[in-house]
This record gives sequence, structure tokens and C-alpha cells, in this order.
Amino acid sequence: MELKQAMWRLIQDVKLKSPLVHNITNYVVMNNTANALLAAGASPIMAHAHAELDEMVAICSASVINIGTLDEYWVQSMLDAASYANQLGKPWVLDPVGAGATSYRNDVLKQLLALKPTVIRGNASEIMAIHAQGVINASKGVDSIHAPKDAVQAARALNEALGAVVVISGAEDIIVSEETIYRVKNGHPMMTKVTGLGCSASALTGAFLGIAAENPAYAALGAMALLGVCGELAVKQCMGPGSLQLALLDNLYTLSESDFLSLVNLSIENEN
Amino acid sequence: MELKQAMWRLIQDVKLKSPLVHNITNYVVMNNTANALLAAGASPIMAHAHAELDEMVAICSASVINIGTLDEYWVQSMLDAASYANQLGKPWVLDPVGAGATSYRNDVLKQLLALKPTVIRGNASEIMAIHAQGVINASKGVDSIHAPKDAVQAARALNEALGAVVVISGAEDIIVSEETIYRVKNGHPMMTKVTGLGCSASALTGAFLGIAAENPAYAALGAMALLGVCGELAVKQCMGPGSLQLALLDNLYTLSESDFLSLVNLSIENEN
Amino acid sequence: MELKQAMWRLIQDVKLKSPLVHNITNYVVMNNTANALLAAGASPIMAHAHAELDEMVAICSASVINIGTLDEYWVQSMLDAASYANQLGKPWVLDPVGAGATSYRNDVLKQLLALKPTVIRGNASEIMAIHAQGVINASKGVDSIHAPKDAVQAARALNEALGAVVVISGAEDIIVSEETIYRVKNGHPMMTKVTGLGCSASALTGAFLGIAAENPAYAALGAMALLGVCGELAVKQCMGPGSLQLALLDNLYTLSESDFLSLVNLSIENEN
Repeated sequence: MELKQAMWRLIQDVKLKSPLVHNITNYVVMNNTANALLAAGASPIMAHAHAELDEMVAICSASVINIGTLDEYWVQSMLDAASYANQLGKPWVLDPVGAGATSYRNDVLKQLLALKPTVIRGNASEIMAIHAQGVINASKGVDSIHAPKDAVQAARALNEALGAVVVISGAEDIIVSEETIYRVKNGHPMMTKVTGLGCSASALTGAFLGIAAENPAYAALGAMALLGVCGELAVKQCMGPGSLQLALLDNLYTLSESDFLSLVNLSIENEN
Repeated sequence: MELKQAMWRLIQDVKLKSPLVHNITNYVVMNNTANALLAAGASPIMAHAHAELDEMVAICSASVINIGTLDEYWVQSMLDAASYANQLGKPWVLDPVGAGATSYRNDVLKQLLALKPTVIRGNASEIMAIHAQGVINASKGVDSIHAPKDAVQAARALNEALGAVVVISGAEDIIVSEETIYRVKNGHPMMTKVTGLGCSASALTGAFLGIAAENPAYAALGAMALLGVCGELAVKQCMGPGSLQLALLDNLYTLSESDFLSLVNLSIENEN
Repeated sequence: MELKQAMWRLIQDVKLKSPLVHNITNYVVMNNTANALLAAGASPIMAHAHAELDEMVAICSASVINIGTLDEYWVQSMLDAASYANQLGKPWVLDPVGAGATSYRNDVLKQLLALKPTVIRGNASEIMAIHAQGVINASKGVDSIHAPKDAVQAARALNEALGAVVVISGAEDIIVSEETIYRVKNGHPMMTKVTGLGCSASALTGAFLGIAAENPAYAALGAMALLGVCGELAVKQCMGPGSLQLALLDNLYTLSESDFLSLVNLSIENEN
């Protein structure tokens, strides 16, 4: 119960403090990501021009870097933003969309991983692919062909090597952080039929990091719990994946404490 | 009453003449902007290739330039389109998204302001930032931290210096044009939780300019009144900001004369 | 009845095999296109970086190339992807958005047409414009000013010259393939008030080609029939073009065999 209450307080804190979140994300999900951040109470900004990234990173509380529709210019933007985040001591989230699908993506990810993301969030196939760097075709495009539990070992290894909190999202969300593993069992399979909800999870993680940078595992847990519960509520209200996308945004905005506390399904596992 | 009727006639005229509106806008709002223009009866085209801008501007009735996700290539597209608009005597709208957030944005805005926008539409913080050129961090990312009335003096100065009609959008929309100030008191605070409704306002202003270029203040007033009334209706029908975005598009398409005339809240103030 | 049943089996096959579809499409419709593919059961990937196109085309079942918001970098991506598709024997769909609007678009289309698209899908004005190559201003921006039947002769000539199946979409959809013309009389005029449903039609054609590459005319027919029937159902459920966009996605996901078979309106015409 304490953990649930702590997560609810974080969710309220995002609304209260409205952190400014800088996003370099893919074209497919920009609208939806901005709307998810707004509905949750954060303030999104999307910017990728090399000439303004230092100032953008500086005025924001966190950056979110998503490689979905990368190209040479955007990769440079991503590398620059991550470097500025490091210089300024700002947290940043890496979303390794399509990791393993092509060697170009793998090369870019190697460079980004070297810039110490605070949190990495991907589906099981993506987390496994960035662990097994250089593996081609480990993912089926951008959709996962693995269950979250298959990727825990890879997440553990990444956490140990990089220090990043690693989030494997899927039927259950698993958050791997040093000696602790958190699990969120919320959400619904229909959520995989809406593009970019994983990207929204990463963006929300950025918002939560913006108000709780000192505890990245909690920030990731709060974001995943919020999205999972709202998705579950939204599935009950929708007619299919089209209306699900919007009902999810509505619930991010209207979620009540009693709904959150009664629905959220969290567990902690201490490894040592 | 006469002014309301005139606005309703403009709204009908957009549907009747279906002006072709050229947009160079940001990635976040492209889909939503195109849908807002279609729902209101206009015909949108998004194009930014340097090689086709002269022909695009020429076949369109107005251009809308929005700097939200600018970079070097797109900035050149914006400058070229504005120049062609001037050469061809076409009206164009400037949406200074994030003005004041970075010095790069400010530099780009200076260049665009020199190309004589017909209408400038921004939130209070953006209008104040482009007035106080070079001021950094005047805005909180892309959201306003000022009330519209705080920006009237800046808008007045911009109008005098540039000749452009200046629209400050927010809780009330204020349209500053030579000796007259128009106010629209419609809309709803939940509209700030949907990304890009300001961008939709700018795009609709482009559509109205496409059929009423001889009276840019009226064009801006018509667009703001339409969006404000439709937003107000949509808030009553929606469950949160997700469904609000779509209900707004529905209302742009279905708005009745009686709803418009009974809800629209306009006032005029003559300064001299 | 046999044809309808065959189309229903194709629709089910897409859900069963979930083909990976590679898209180089425009910024306006990326989100909606990805969601249409997901709702129909396919697996979308959007990628345009020159450095990864060979691998992307290789892992996907079909590519879809849409020139809506083209520029120099993206045109090279399109040409590369089409070339790789040819080398690898993969089918690809060309969506000639805004054909005829500018000479740049016409030049790009000439180059793409030389790379042997499997299917070309456009509105009547676009099909007529690419037939009458170099004709400027044949279209009104991206919306058609011609009825589908006006474009049959152009489609026939394109089919003979290039071997591509040509789909003219509009009030009725006409699929021109060697000696056969298929017609789909479904859909609703309100669908023209939602941006990018033509682009969704092209993307769905890619998904169907991904599972039925040996019969491109059938693939195109299946995609157009699915979209037309779902659009018709969605119009009955929606309040305007905003909610139509989502109801359409919902119906792509939930469509029942009995609804499809009772509503779909297909005809075949053998020319010889």
C-alpha cells in the first residue's frame, strides 16, 4: 500500500509541478506523445535543431530520446542532446525503437548507450537486442516477439554495465534497478494495436524523472503504473484501438485516486 | 449582432470556396492541422521542399508558417515561402511557437518578421517575446505563462512596427489591428491540454485569409471565433482532452448558425 | 459471392500473418497510417534513413512510398527503397500525393514510375496527372477535382505502359489490372474530410500485397473493400470527421464477416 500511495503522490506531483520535458522523438508518435504529456500534467516541447539543443536541454527538466524515425541529422541531434544532458546533470530517457532491426540502428544505439541514459525503456525484443549488440533481426520490426520475462537477464546486464534503470514493457512491465525488480501488471493486449504507446511510456517516464530525478526507478514505476491503469480503464470505455488511443488520454487527465489505488498492481522483488 | 453575422458569413464562405491553404508547420500538429482545415471546409496542403515552394505558394490562397519543430532546412523553406508570398501578393500567417525559448528561435523569428507576415498569432508569452526580441526564457517552453491582456502593449507595438494584425490567444483572444481591438471570449481551459490548438487557430486564420485577404483582422476574428465556439461545444461533449481533440473537429464540421450566434462572445474597442 | 468470400479470406489472412510493412510516407499521416495497419492486423514500420533502407526493405513483406511531404533527402530514400524492392523481388505501392501540383513532384514521380511500382493508388486527379506527365495544376492541391471514372483511360494507359495495377480511389474505387476492372462502391463522402484516408488505403494495399504478392489486383481490391466497408460503418457511428477517423480504426479491428459480406459492393468487368 505504501508503494501505491507513493506512486499516486508522484502522479499528483507531475500535475502540480508541470515539468517541461524535451523530446526528440519519431514522426509517428509526436502528436500522441505531446498529448499524453499534456494530459498527465507535464509540459512537452519537441525540438531537434542542432543550434538550439543546448538551450532546450537547459530549460527542460528531462529529455526523452526516441530513435524511431532516425536519420543522420536527427542522430546528431540525439547525440548532442544526450551530451548536453550529461554536462548539465539532467536526466534523460532512451527509447530504442526497432533495436536489432538494422545494423544502422544498432550502431546509433551503441553511441547513445555510451552517453549514460538514466532510464532505458523498450519492449522485450528491443532490450534483448541492445544487450546482444549487433544482432540483426532480433525484433520483428518495432513489435516485440518476446515476453518481458525473457528479457530480464539482458536488462540486469544492461543495468550493471551502464547504471541505467531498464524498463521492459509488455504484458507486464518490469523495471530493473540495481538490487530491485519492480513489476506492474496492468494494461491490456489491445494497447499493442495503438501505435506509440510504448513511446508515450518513455515520454511519461521523462516527465516523472523531471520531478523525481533522484529516484529513477520510482520515476519509471510511476509512469508505467499510470499508463497501465489508464490503459486498463480506457479499454473498458472504448470500441476498438482508435477510440482506445483517445480514451487513454482522457483517463490520464481524469484518473481518480480511488481508481488508481484499487486497480494498480505492483510488486517488488529484492534480489539480494 | 452585425459583427456576429459577418463572422458567420465568413465561416460559410470558407466552406463554399474551400481555399487551398499552404502549410509549413511542425511535425507534432500536422495531422490535426490538416483535419481542422478539412473540417472547416478548407483544403490543406503541407509542403516544404525548396524546389516546389514557388509553385505551391502560387497555387494556394494563403500560407501558414509555424516554427514549432524548425531546423536549418525548414527555416530556409519558411523564408522562401514568405518571400514568394510577398512577391505574389499572397497573405501569410506567422505562428511563433516557442518564441523566446532559445536564441536560435529568436534569430529565425527576426528574419521572418522582416518578411511582413499578414497576421501573427501566438500566446501571450510568445507575443511578448517577439516584441522583446532576444529575450531568452520568456516563455515556459511552448506554453504561455502570461495572460493575454499582459501582451496587448507588445501586440500594439508589433502592429505599429510591422503592419501585421496580431492575435494573442488564450483565455480570451485579443486581435490587435491599427485602431481597433477585437476580443473573443469563448473557448475553455481544457483546450490547453490538447497539443496544437493554437497551431489550428493559425491554420484556420490562413483559411479565412484565403477568402478575405482584404480584411486580415476580420479573417483572424472569424478563425478565433470559430475555434473558440467549437471548443466550447466540444468540451461539453467530451470526456477529457483526448476526446476533446476529436469533438472539436466534429464541431468544426457540424456547427450550426444558431449555436454560433448564441454562443459567440465578441467585443470591439476603438482606441482613437 | 465467391469474390466477396475471397476478399474476406484475405482480410483474415492479414490478421493471421501480420505482415511487416515498410512505409516511407508523409508527416501528416504517419500516426494514422501506422494505426490503420495495426488495427487491420499488420505490423507497420516507418523508416527513411539511407543507411538502413536495404535491411528494412529486406525484412519487410512490402514497401509503401508516399510522396506527400517530399524533400531531397526523402526523395533519395524513396528511390533507394524502390530500387531495393526491385532487387529483392518485393512488392511496393506508390501513392502519388499531389501529382501535378508542382513540376518537382512530377519529376520525382517520373523517377519513381521508372522503378516499377506493383500498385499505384491515387485519386482521379493524381492518376490523370501522372498519366499526362508534366501537366501542372491538374489537381487542386491534394484533393481530387475529377471523378474516378474520368481517370479510367489514364489508369488503363499506365497499366499498359508500366504493368502496375492502378487504383483510382474516390466515390467509387476503380482497380485497373490488365483485362479486368474491379469496382468497389462503398465508403462515404465524409471520408474526404479526414486527412490521409487515401494514404491509409495505400498502406493497407501494402499489407495485403505482403500476404498476396502473387495477385496485386486482389490485394488492392481487398484493401479498398476493407477500407470502404469500415468507412461506411464508421460514418454511421460518428458525429463528424474527427470521430470518423477513430471509428474507422475501431472498425478495422472489429469488423465481422457478416457485416463485411452484407455491405461490400464489388463488381468485375472483363474488357476482352
